[in-house]
Amino acid sequence: MDEPASLDDIPTPALVVERSVFESNLQTMSKARPGGALRPHVKAFKSTQMASQLDKAGHNSFCAATIAEIEGMAAAGLDHDLLLANEVLDARRLGALVKSGSRVTVAVDSRETLAAAVSGGVREVLIDVEVGLPRCGCAVEDAGPLADEARSAGLVVRGVMGYEGHLVMVADPVERGERVERSMQKLLSAHEAVGGEVISAGGTGTYAVNKWANEIQAGSFLLMDTHYASLEIPFEIALTVLSTVVSASPKGWAVGDAGLKAFGMDHGDPKWPQGEVMFCSDEHITVRPFEGEPLPSVGDRLRLQPAHVDPTVAKHRCFWVVDGSNIVDRWPIDLRHW
Amino acid sequence: MDEPASLDDIPTPALVVERSVFESNLQTMSKARPGGALRPHVKAFKSTQMASQLDKAGHNSFCAATIAEIEGMAAAGLDHDLLLANEVLDARRLGALVKSGSRVTVAVDSRETLAAAVSGGVREVLIDVEVGLPRCGCAVEDAGPLADEARSAGLVVRGVMGYEGHLVMVADPVERGERVERSMQKLLSAHEAVGGEVISAGGTGTYAVNKWANEIQAGSFLLMDTHYASLEIPFEIALTVLSTVVSASPKGWAVGDAGLKAFGMDHGDPKWPQGEVMFCSDEHITVRPFEGEPLPSVGDRLRLQPAHVDPTVAKHRCFWVVDGSNIVDRWPIDLRHW
Repeated sequence: MDEPASLDDIPTPALVVERSVFESNLQTMSKARPGGALRPHVKAFKSTQMASQLDKAGHNSFCAATIAEIEGMAAAGLDHDLLLANEVLDARRLGALVKSGSRVTVAVDSRETLAAAVSGGVREVLIDVEVGLPRCGCAVEDAGPLADEARSAGLVVRGVMGYEGHLVMVADPVERGERVERSMQKLLSAHEAVGGEVISAGGTGTYAVNKWANEIQAGSFLLMDTHYASLEIPFEIALTVLSTVVSASPKGWAVGDAGLKAFGMDHGDPKWPQGEVMFCSDEHITVRPFEGEPLPSVGDRLRLQPAHVDPTVAKHRCFWVVDGSNIVDRWPIDLRHW
Repeated sequence: MDEPASLDDIPTPALVVERSVFESNLQTMSKARPGGALRPHVKAFKSTQMASQLDKAGHNSFCAATIAEIEGMAAAGLDHDLLLANEVLDARRLGALVKSGSRVTVAVDSRETLAAAVSGGVREVLIDVEVGLPRCGCAVEDAGPLADEARSAGLVVRGVMGYEGHLVMVADPVERGERVERSMQKLLSAHEAVGGEVISAGGTGTYAVNKWANEIQAGSFLLMDTHYASLEIPFEIALTVLSTVVSASPKGWAVGDAGLKAFGMDHGDPKWPQGEVMFCSDEHITVRPFEGEPLPSVGDRLRLQPAHVDPTVAKHRCFWVVDGSNIVDRWPIDLRHW
């Protein structure tokens, strides 16, 4: 197939990024969190070419959730300061990157993960502190002793991280701010015991209210999704899934060729702005137009808004970057799997 | 990395298939639906090596939901009788397979999809009939005229298909049977007008109660999931996601390295037999053991049961086939994407 020039020629289902919205989201965040005050989280978009847009905008310290993401970023030369903001037990692949010259820091929250960093050949760590989300992170009182142990083992402890993920969707910004403050008090208290330059936290939902972290780990703001769009944050939806209508019923529904294998479904069905999404099947979405809206015909294209950006992106192989209906770029989603 | 020999050496997250359970599920189905009475649906497992196990068991007519699945099956030589049980508007890739000697049939439910089959070079079709599920399929009364049109255009009309997907999860088998009968009356009525040998319908939930279709399109029965396991059907769960515990909290939870990017989430959280799944994040699952069960330690492995097999499989690159803790095979998931 010739390389498509227009949105109409893209084989579906496909991920489409509206360039102007993407750029506007990036500018808005860059203004609020310039340079290293933002540590973009590549798990949200899994693309080194998208990461290079952030790099050009002055954000050259990245974080990731998987070893494969870190490896891909290093291979792309975006390895000025890579943080695996997650715990791992086999750090040999990270150690190999350090050996070849990449700067790689890993989060640790236990003796086991610290031992893994040491034996894997990683030289820099952050102490991951649990600040309210029941997930990774040590207790505040264990942070200092763990840092001491790390330093005794010859590692550089760069500081602390703690993710207030339980608060990113608190609807009221004032309440969100107050609760984030209480959560960050824990992180600051751990930081007092740990030391180091870095206090890393936050995400798209808390980037504006978290005044205590000196770097924010956010990624979803670039592309957005219907879940985050329900918050009062100044980012617009740049990502849609393009789908072709393959069937339309006189009973009033139409069927697009994008389903459970094209969308992250944990936050529910995607949205179709012209009507109701009845349900998704493996490779189908059944939609019904709102009263007064026309029923799509076979061959029409639907633009669907995912409910959760990260797991949606992980299902696709590339972003089609568009300006209106013109395709202006194609970015491989090259940081997938593990 | 050396090729792992034991379950303990597999990098996580990973899909694990218990060989004995897989084989037992296959035998049970083969007994009920021998040979061509089963048209295995490859969308459920997306692996030509798994398909070849079905082929060896005498099931050599397959169906699929995407062009890519059909292409992969043809490339693997499993192209004795391939049905794309779905509508497409660009059938050129299917026509190319026909030209090179594969037998490929495609479902049509409209003039547009019929025209696509003709212009794409596909020579055999099934008329897809809507039998109650609001998705693809023409009205019963339109099936005969569409078949006539297809024959006028020089195509072979092999018969009809209609998926009673709205009934596969009806809990009471008697009620399920009665409602499937009413649904299949529509398909038989369409078949009277259409003619041809094939009456294709059904799935894992209705294979036993659908007495009217002469071939059943089922795939999930091989691996199963917690959703289908809630039905009274004689198949056991053969598929788990293996995860490593990377963090454990004295507050009573443990965190595994498998999350939203490793599970199909549309049917809800996976199950952990030893306790409660609190929530999944992109790359994490937080679990809390049942009263009296031990808290997993960092480094322990969790075996998690997906809620929906098809979209779970589509996120992974291979199945690790095991006999107890020994790895006996590794089947690539080579039918992914579109």
